[in-house]
Amino acid sequence: MSALPTIHDVARVAGVSRQTVSNVLNTPAIVRPDTRARVQSAIAELGYRPHESARRLRTRKSSTLGIRIDPMTDGISGSVLDRFLHALTEQAARQGLRVMLFTATDPHDEIAQFARLRDAADVDAFVLTSTFHGDPRTQWLIENGQSFVTFGRPWGIDDMNDPQHLWVDVDGWFGLHEATAALLAQGHRRVGYIGWPSPSGTGDDRRRGWRDALREHGPVSDDELAAMSRAVEDGVTQGGAAMRELLATGDVDAVVCASDSLALGALIASGGRIPVVGYDNTPVAAALGLSSVEQPLDEVAAGVLDLLTGVHGGRLGDAPAHDPRHRLVRPRLILRTPERIPAQ
Amino acid sequence: MSALPTIHDVARVAGVSRQTVSNVLNTPAIVRPDTRARVQSAIAELGYRPHESARRLRTRKSSTLGIRIDPMTDGISGSVLDRFLHALTEQAARQGLRVMLFTATDPHDEIAQFARLRDAADVDAFVLTSTFHGDPRTQWLIENGQSFVTFGRPWGIDDMNDPQHLWVDVDGWFGLHEATAALLAQGHRRVGYIGWPSPSGTGDDRRRGWRDALREHGPVSDDELAAMSRAVEDGVTQGGAAMRELLATGDVDAVVCASDSLALGALIASGGRIPVVGYDNTPVAAALGLSSVEQPLDEVAAGVLDLLTGVHGGRLGDAPAHDPRHRLVRPRLILRTPERIPAQ
Repeated sequence: MSALPTIHDVARVAGVSRQTVSNVLNTPAIVRPDTRARVQSAIAELGYRPHESARRLRTRKSSTLGIRIDPMTDGISGSVLDRFLHALTEQAARQGLRVMLFTATDPHDEIAQFARLRDAADVDAFVLTSTFHGDPRTQWLIENGQSFVTFGRPWGIDDMNDPQHLWVDVDGWFGLHEATAALLAQGHRRVGYIGWPSPSGTGDDRRRGWRDALREHGPVSDDELAAMSRAVEDGVTQGGAAMRELLATGDVDAVVCASDSLALGALIASGGRIPVVGYDNTPVAAALGLSSVEQPLDEVAAGVLDLLTGVHGGRLGDAPAHDPRHRLVRPRLILRTPERIPAQ
Repeated sequence: MSALPTIHDVARVAGVSRQTVSNVLNTPAIVRPDTRARVQSAIAELGYRPHESARRLRTRKSSTLGIRIDPMTDGISGSVLDRFLHALTEQAARQGLRVMLFTATDPHDEIAQFARLRDAADVDAFVLTSTFHGDPRTQWLIENGQSFVTFGRPWGIDDMNDPQHLWVDVDGWFGLHEATAALLAQGHRRVGYIGWPSPSGTGDDRRRGWRDALREHGPVSDDELAAMSRAVEDGVTQGGAAMRELLATGDVDAVVCASDSLALGALIASGGRIPVVGYDNTPVAAALGLSSVEQPLDEVAAGVLDLLTGVHGGRLGDAPAHDPRHRLVRPRLILRTPERIPAQ
């Protein structure tokens, strides 16, 4: 699609891998001098400009951020990304930036959209959501010198000290830790957990928050942890089924959940016998008086814009090593008393 | 902001009102010949091009639709416009069109954003939501020859046969009529209504649907209608208060509502003693088993794109008189049995 030379073209002409070209651009010291010379010669020959887009953001040529929007769902927790989109658009407008939406069927289609938008010079930078370990999207953006920030960690081995890219995320560990600690402080002794199957960067992080709060309170074995928790796909029905299992076998006296969808199902299934805490503080939770952990999406949006428009310009290579390369914001526990809604 | 001549410039140079310039462009037959000549001379002198943007959509120069997005709310019914945005973006992408978001503090600020986006040639057409009677935004877009379609009627005297612009809307009258008729068919005799204060184009339309279904079923006086209905601001709390009043004084045996927020409050306040039907089929309604009227937002998005990219190109002046200038799509009643959610 592109008439501009890409990192692939440079690699082909130089007879090296894309990774080597990327190394020459970002960490030239680790590349052998003769290889480096060959790559630099290919870059000059082709007129490859990896940093053009980053410069464009700083000069605000198109003043536009690109973000993927997914097909509408009727899910409860899906509203979080909508709320993030509102916050991002609102705060971007204050800086003279607009938001361009696009759709993609999968990560590779999303990469094709990146290339299309880059080639048309329609956006200055990308904002990515729903990151995962080994995400090919961020790899492509890095290799192609595109400015971007993710809402979500790289979920690599050491996100904090060695991030592969600039990111903002909400500390799910902290949120579940707070929720669990609050229930323990209220006198509950066996606080259970309903979350998602592993591996899940977000899900495993939230589960660790629950586990660590329990362990800080007293000894608890892995067998006990397993008996007091369930891993199910997200959904009201699934949350209900998990709660019935926990009540039957797990001897729990309170439950924290990885999402409001799970928590709503758990609340209904428990018949109100034990406290339930959800995650995301969705309109459903607010309307029903369900306790929940709120993600500060205004802070997330502010962090994304800060990283995009700051000295980094959304590119890690531009950042001095001592600069903050990420923002991990703390969620807020909202405790409520549920409404009584009898059947008709 | 604009270096391009506007309809205001033409009016000033010709010494006439903006409306007269608009008439010369759209209905020249009703303008006196000497006035028409003066306006046409001013148009030629200034190089005013009212139809440029419409042509741009047909040639798809920027391939972008502009739509306003509001600050995030925690409201339940607010998710409808988010779901419309998802559907619009998804369907626009299939036609090679993208969606650009912008924000505005009020209708006049939104008009300033229109002008800014037009001057930068960043969008080909606008999609407007939340229309109201005498909306200055549509008047500005018509006068400035901008392509646009609204999700929402003009709410004028005769929207159907003499629309001031191209629009798509959901037939709220039909939705409330269906809901009320379904409850009457189940044997309920005094079906009450909780809606919004008049005047409200959307709200008054939904109330008429309830009223007409009751009247088709048997005689009902205006006093009885007043006793069986309440008009309150949207919200769960307000819906609950209205339901308590109706139960105390209105002798209702079922209630239909203008929104799921009102319906949720009514459901809680009724203690499940009588059936409640909401409007919008939000995730809250689905999760709690609340009956509701679903707006077919995929159909709305398809209608908007059809009118924008069809022969009209979003401009009424291009449409032959016999062509459909609007789409009024029918919502769907979804009947459910509520969950029992006891307090903790």
